Amino acid sequence: MAKHDPALSRLFHVLADPTRRSILTRLAEGPATVTDLAGPTGLRLPTVMRHLSLMEAVGLIATAKDGRVRVCSIVPEALDPVRTWIDEQRAIWESRLDRLDAFVMKVMKESET
Amino acid sequence: MAKHDPALSRLFHVLADPTRRSILTRLAEGPATVTDLAGPTGLRLPTVMRHLSLMEAVGLIATAKDGRVRVCSIVPEALDPVRTWIDEQRAIWESRLDRLDAFVMKVMKESET
Repeated sequence: MAKHDPALSRLFHVLADPTRRSILTRLAEGPATVTDLAGPTGLRLPTVMRHLSLMEAVGLIATAKDGRVRVCSIVPEALDPVRTWIDEQRAIWESRLDRLDAFVMKVMKESET
Repeated sequence: MAKHDPALSRLFHVLADPTRRSILTRLAEGPATVTDLAGPTGLRLPTVMRHLSLMEAVGLIATAKDGRVRVCSIVPEALDPVRTWIDEQRAIWESRLDRLDAFVMKVMKESET
């Protein structure tokens, strides 16, 4: 595992904002226009567009022009690096617990003999 | 799911930093003192202590005094909210795909009759 993974840092940074997370959840339900997405946030269009542009830069969403409107859609596999990183931490932790278990078993067996 | 979850935002923010992620990976292997943790980062102790204090504030690590040294350990379940959030996004996305599948099957069946 790379110790410094700038793409992963950017992904965590983008997900640290509740507005961006709520936009992502909305897009998991299906594609939406910028105006559709702005509605529930209560934010002005330029603010929402800045959020969307950050999300597109890290690959979390894709946007495409449909006539005069811009339609946004989720890129679900973009969350994979976050999931992989969490799984890696758990694997390191569990392998440590296994070693501790093995050590305790060994000590217990030795004390029996 | 709460739309605004400040604890989750703080967790993502803390994980957005590569030094803090590398400290967490080190602690997954077992408890360590602040000096142990500072070594590989190449950072000064006060800087590392600021990182540790942020990580402790969101519950990712716990620290305890052992004589004159402070020992840090990981709190592995602290990553659960991040995992849960990612699982929720996938569930929404997959349920949408299932509905699309069902719709396509329905249209195909109707076109056969």
